[in-house]
Amino acid sequence: MKASVMKPIRVGILGIGTVGSGTFNVLRRNQEEIRRRAGRAIEVVMVADLDTERARQVTGGSVEIVSDARLVVAHPDIDIVIELIGGDGIARELMMTAIANGKHVVTANKALLAKHGTEIFRAAEEKGVMVAFEAAVAGGIPIIKALREGLTANRIQWIAGIINGTTNFILSEMRDKGLDFDVVLKQAQALGYAEADPTFDIEGVDAAHKATIMSAIAFGVPVQFDKAHVEGITKLSATDIRYAEQLGYRIKLLGIARRVEAGIELRVHPTLIPATRLIANVEGAMNAVLVQGDAVGATLYYGKGAGSEPTASAVIADLVDITRLATADPEHRVPYLAFQSNQMADTPISTNAGRRQTGRAG
Amino acid sequence: MKASVMKPIRVGILGIGTVGSGTFNVLRRNQEEIRRRAGRAIEVVMVADLDTERARQVTGGSVEIVSDARLVVAHPDIDIVIELIGGDGIARELMMTAIANGKHVVTANKALLAKHGTEIFRAAEEKGVMVAFEAAVAGGIPIIKALREGLTANRIQWIAGIINGTTNFILSEMRDKGLDFDVVLKQAQALGYAEADPTFDIEGVDAAHKATIMSAIAFGVPVQFDKAHVEGITKLSATDIRYAEQLGYRIKLLGIARRVEAGIELRVHPTLIPATRLIANVEGAMNAVLVQGDAVGATLYYGKGAGSEPTASAVIADLVDITRLATADPEHRVPYLAFQSNQMADTPISTNAGRRQTGRAG
Repeated sequence: MKASVMKPIRVGILGIGTVGSGTFNVLRRNQEEIRRRAGRAIEVVMVADLDTERARQVTGGSVEIVSDARLVVAHPDIDIVIELIGGDGIARELMMTAIANGKHVVTANKALLAKHGTEIFRAAEEKGVMVAFEAAVAGGIPIIKALREGLTANRIQWIAGIINGTTNFILSEMRDKGLDFDVVLKQAQALGYAEADPTFDIEGVDAAHKATIMSAIAFGVPVQFDKAHVEGITKLSATDIRYAEQLGYRIKLLGIARRVEAGIELRVHPTLIPATRLIANVEGAMNAVLVQGDAVGATLYYGKGAGSEPTASAVIADLVDITRLATADPEHRVPYLAFQSNQMADTPISTNAGRRQTGRAG
Repeated sequence: MKASVMKPIRVGILGIGTVGSGTFNVLRRNQEEIRRRAGRAIEVVMVADLDTERARQVTGGSVEIVSDARLVVAHPDIDIVIELIGGDGIARELMMTAIANGKHVVTANKALLAKHGTEIFRAAEEKGVMVAFEAAVAGGIPIIKALREGLTANRIQWIAGIINGTTNFILSEMRDKGLDFDVVLKQAQALGYAEADPTFDIEGVDAAHKATIMSAIAFGVPVQFDKAHVEGITKLSATDIRYAEQLGYRIKLLGIARRVEAGIELRVHPTLIPATRLIANVEGAMNAVLVQGDAVGATLYYGKGAGSEPTASAVIADLVDITRLATADPEHRVPYLAFQSNQMADTPISTNAGRRQTGRAG
């Protein structure tokens, strides 16, 4: 069956805030390319948000809006539920119901997965549905895919990541401007880089959630957030950072998961890194994850770890993966071919456009 | 069906040189983890190499060795053929025969794909088999997977990569030691970082092959190596590099593919990059690819771009992907779950191991 004549896969979104509206907008803006890559159209048919007026503004009236998210997870016509409510209260109940109703789930909810992932993944396994969570770690960086699929040859030895943009922004500012933590935190809050209650970020809890999820994939262990050693950046002063710099180091808040003799060690704390290392030069709100595998050696993944469209990029990648894999026609399951050979002619390669932006030395 | 009782997927390797022996060794060393991730064992049953004695030494006598690669692509018991012969002569014929015989193909052969990819992918599509080529670009970095699956939400705007380790090693040495190109090339040859005939690397042809392949995936266009603008590093002097440095730039050989009004622009040439950029600090034989997408912004992927086990890491990731997707039982197709929930207890998370390698500032 041709992609163009296949029925769209139907999606319901729970929560249309920052990430939800980014997802809706990118799905609409890039719908042709996404359809080509997924082999089938992806259609948002229902959105649940307590603020139905806002939901209507975002979606422009093309989608059914409800205030009760339970209507989405119970809806017989929905194939995939995107959970963007967050937290481990109502979101957990909704996700479990969606799974029980045979729906695939895409989520950005790191807190929920870090605490209850074992239960959620087991339920999904029993029901034969997928739970995808690329957006839960490092925003738009496809690090979950790299760990789960790109590095499958390797015995992973350790992972170390700058996986919280707020704290990396604060540390970068403290270093650049020689200011103390409290001062920079207030500025970050004013700029929207830190939340009104920044506890989860600055105390390292958010990074620990993400490190917990990565450790489960990399080492094949259950998610065990309660075993993580967690220490934030609140005790760091401008003096600490200056001394580190004089010794040739940068201070970064790292989430670390590593194999040790006793099992897996999971920890988040400020770390001295030689200033010449690539990961020491990840500045501002950017994220980066370094993975050490026995065959590949060290690989690093860098990009925006938060924000509306970067996180939407990860949500939609999961939607496309599920669409490919859930589509009954095996011809559409594997987009191993780089392009659709019948659609080539309309994008010729140009050699005439010249080299406009990059100069040439020599 | 349990993974443990499913029949292994059977693999034949064409060419057991550097990458082939790395693949064989990593498959053997990490067989338990690879089986867990693939949901099924991956077994090398046949190896073709003109040097049968060497092949026997590598495989330790556990595998059937032949000197005629046609016996592998014709063998009815082989599910996946790994083509590691290279070049676009006999390798092309063997790959087309393997596809015609209904076998999936994994290859590291960038030259072949850059020139004849369109024909090869079309044949695979018609036959319903997969052609996977993660190892063809940037060695162990899962950049093909990132472009093809991780960034599917995005309209890709451009890709710029340090995708030839030999030239990056030469440029790094020229800069560090203030030496001219010819001198460093001879040293690189003595160290094994450059081949006896280094033309493909230093003239930018190898980078152009890889940029061509990435452009096909990112932009959905056919592989058109003949349209690429290709310029190597042979005309660069120590003076060029010193002047660049004084102005705050590094010179890197970049493979660039970008959308322009006329279509897609494809080019390889030495490029001035501000020294503060992450990609300007990719040194020695390392590779890195920067991808700009409209939703995610810039993401960067860094790691070893060549070598026995880094490239084997990519070959095996493709083997695992194909194994998952080719396995009839849909339960084993999607390893979305991070772990096998019945195998958790034996790897506990330890909090006692302490923080041995990384100091804490503050």
